[in-house]
Amino acid sequence: MNAIRIELSTNKKQKPEVSELGFGKYYTDHMVILDYDASIGWHDARVVPYQPITLDPAAKVFHYGQTVFEGLKAYLTADGPIRLFRPRKNFERLNRSNERLSIPHLDEELALEALKLLILTDREWIPSAEGTSLYIRPFIIATEAALGVNPSTQYKFMIIMSPVGSYYAEGIHPVKIFVESEYVRAVKGGVGNAKTAGNYAAGLKAQENATKQGSSQVLWLDGVHRKYIEEVGSMNVFFNINGTIVTPALNGSILDGITRDSIIQLLKHWNIPVEERALSIDEIVEAHGNGSLVEAFGTGTAAVISPIGELLWLGHKLSINNGETGELSAKLYDNLTGIQKGTVEDPFGWILTLDDREATGVSAVNAQSHKS
Amino acid sequence: MNAIRIELSTNKKQKPEVSELGFGKYYTDHMVILDYDASIGWHDARVVPYQPITLDPAAKVFHYGQTVFEGLKAYLTADGPIRLFRPRKNFERLNRSNERLSIPHLDEELALEALKLLILTDREWIPSAEGTSLYIRPFIIATEAALGVNPSTQYKFMIIMSPVGSYYAEGIHPVKIFVESEYVRAVKGGVGNAKTAGNYAAGLKAQENATKQGSSQVLWLDGVHRKYIEEVGSMNVFFNINGTIVTPALNGSILDGITRDSIIQLLKHWNIPVEERALSIDEIVEAHGNGSLVEAFGTGTAAVISPIGELLWLGHKLSINNGETGELSAKLYDNLTGIQKGTVEDPFGWILTLDDREATGVSAVNAQSHKS
Repeated sequence: MNAIRIELSTNKKQKPEVSELGFGKYYTDHMVILDYDASIGWHDARVVPYQPITLDPAAKVFHYGQTVFEGLKAYLTADGPIRLFRPRKNFERLNRSNERLSIPHLDEELALEALKLLILTDREWIPSAEGTSLYIRPFIIATEAALGVNPSTQYKFMIIMSPVGSYYAEGIHPVKIFVESEYVRAVKGGVGNAKTAGNYAAGLKAQENATKQGSSQVLWLDGVHRKYIEEVGSMNVFFNINGTIVTPALNGSILDGITRDSIIQLLKHWNIPVEERALSIDEIVEAHGNGSLVEAFGTGTAAVISPIGELLWLGHKLSINNGETGELSAKLYDNLTGIQKGTVEDPFGWILTLDDREATGVSAVNAQSHKS
Repeated sequence: MNAIRIELSTNKKQKPEVSELGFGKYYTDHMVILDYDASIGWHDARVVPYQPITLDPAAKVFHYGQTVFEGLKAYLTADGPIRLFRPRKNFERLNRSNERLSIPHLDEELALEALKLLILTDREWIPSAEGTSLYIRPFIIATEAALGVNPSTQYKFMIIMSPVGSYYAEGIHPVKIFVESEYVRAVKGGVGNAKTAGNYAAGLKAQENATKQGSSQVLWLDGVHRKYIEEVGSMNVFFNINGTIVTPALNGSILDGITRDSIIQLLKHWNIPVEERALSIDEIVEAHGNGSLVEAFGTGTAAVISPIGELLWLGHKLSINNGETGELSAKLYDNLTGIQKGTVEDPFGWILTLDDREATGVSAVNAQSHKS
C-alpha cells in the first residue's frame, strides 16, 4: 500500500446550518489529490486543505473533456459509526469509465484508503439530521498542457466532499417528467455508459426546455430508434407494470447505476418480479392506457428514489398513480435509506463502517509521518 | 465597444526554433480573458500575460464538461501583413456551440477585437517559414463551483495562441484511415454539431485502436444506421467519385467545418460539381470496386487538406489513387494555403489583414489607458 500523506488545514471553515445545505454548495476543509504522469504512474496520494487548483489554460480537460467522475455518500446517525454505501462499486465503475476515456487505471484500494482518511479527517462535516448526508465526489481530469487530440500524459485524481441537505425537504414526492423527442443523451458506441463530463453537458439544453414546460426532468429515449427508454435526468428509471418492475437493460448507452443495482437486488430479495429489458415509450403509453402502469420512479445517489407522477409525451399528460408516491416507491425509499442510515438491517453487506477509533489511528500515523 | 485592457508581460519567454514547433506545444506570451457572471454578463475583457488559471475543484467544467472551443490560424509572410482566415466564422460558430451547450452568447465583435489585440501584442510569435502559422484557440469554460447538474452561472472566455510547425514536414502525403464499426462519435440530437469537449473525449478510444491497426485516423460512421459517413478524425471528409465531389450533408451530428465550407466554395468557383448529401460506406466500397473512387481527403484547420491513401474496412484494405495524393487534393491544398498565405488571389474576401501600424496604435492606446 502506498503511503498517503496528510497536510492539515490551519484555517478551518465555518460549517453551514443544516437548513442552508442544499446540494453541492459547501465543501469540507480537506480534499484528496493523486497525480499521474506517464513516466511514473499515479503518485503522491495526499489529503490536503481544500483549495483552488492551478492549471495551464491549455490543460486537456478544458478542450477535450477527458474526465470521469463518481458520486457516493457517507451517512452518520447520532450514536452510530460513519457509514459508506458500497464505495468499492464506485471505484470499480470509475475504472470502467477510465477504460472508455483512455485514462490510466487507478488502484481502487488506494483510492478507497484515501477516501477513508479524508472522511475521518473531515468527520465533523458529516451532517446527521434526517435526510442529510456527506456527498462525495471523486473525479479525474486530464491536465497535460497540449492541444493535440490524444490522451493526456498527465492527470489529477481528486476527491472533494460536500455536506448535503435532504433531497425531499417536505417528504418524498413525485415529479413531472418531460419525455424528450428532439435531443439525445447518448447512443450505443458512444460514452453513455461511462460517467464522464460530456454526457452531462449534452443534457443541459433538454433539461432547460423541460423546465420551461413545467417538468423537473427529462426522460431520455434511445438515439437510434427514438423510442426505447434509457434514463430519467441523470438517474436510472423503473416502471411497475402490473406488479412486474421493468427497467431498461444495460445496453451500452445507459449508466450502470449503483442505486439501480441495489434496487434490483432489493426487489429480488423480496421476490418481486424484476425485468431488465428493452422498454419502449409505446409500451408505457399502452400500459398507461389500459391501467397497468402502476408506478414509475427514478433511482440515483442524490435522490435515492424519485417517484414520477406524470409523463409529458408529445403534448399528452400521462398521470401515474394519480400523481402520488406509489407503495413500492415508498417502501424502496424507506428500506434503502434505512440500510444507508443503519435503521434497517443490511442483508447484502453493502455498508462499510468507519470507526472513530480507526479514524484517530490512521490520521495520527499519517499526520505524524508525512505531514508537510 | 467595451474597452479591452492590457497588462503586458515583463517576463518574455524564449521562442522555440521552427524545427521544434510541432502542434500546440508552445504558447505565446499573452492570452485573452473575459469573465461572465449571471448578474453582470460578460465583462473585463483583457489581454494579460500567459499564465495558469486557478479554479475551485468543484468548477463545473471539471464535472459536467460545459465548454466550447474554436480553432483558427494567423499567417505571416516575409513582407506582408498579418493574415487571419475567416475569423468571424469561428466566433459565429462559437455562439452556435454556446446555444447548444447552454452557455451565454458572446459579443462576436468584442471577441474579434480582443483577438486582434492579442495577435498584435504577440506578433513576434507568428512564424513565417513555409507551412508554419500561429494556431489560435478561443474557448469557454464553466467555472461556477457547484455540483448541481445545471448550466453554470459563471464562465471564462479565453484565447491562447501557439506557433505551429508545418503539418506536412515532408510535403503533403496521404494517410491510412480505419473505418470505425464499434465506436460512435456523435448522433443526431446530441452535440456532434457543436465544437465541445465531449465530442473529442468520445473519440480518443477509437483513435487509439486505429493507431494500433496502423491507421492514423478514424472514419466515423453515423450512430443510427452505422453506415453513413460522418467525419474523419476531427476533420470533415470529401470523396471524388467520378469527378463529382461528395461530402456528408450537415445533418445535425457533423461539425460545420470552416475549411469544409471553404472547399465547397472553391469547388463551385471552379465549376466542379459538389454534392452535400448522405453517403454510405457501401457506396464508397462500390465506387472503389468499379474504379470510380478517384480521391478522398479530410479537411480541417490544422492540416487544411489531408489526403486519404487507404481505407481499412472490416479487415479489407481499399487503396485510393494508389496511395498517392490526388490531383484535386493537391490543387485544393495549394490554392487554399495560397489564399491563407497571400500568394494566391482571394476572390472570396476570406482574409482579414492586420497592419502593424494598426498594431502599434491599438496596443499603445490600450496599454496607456488600461494597463494595470
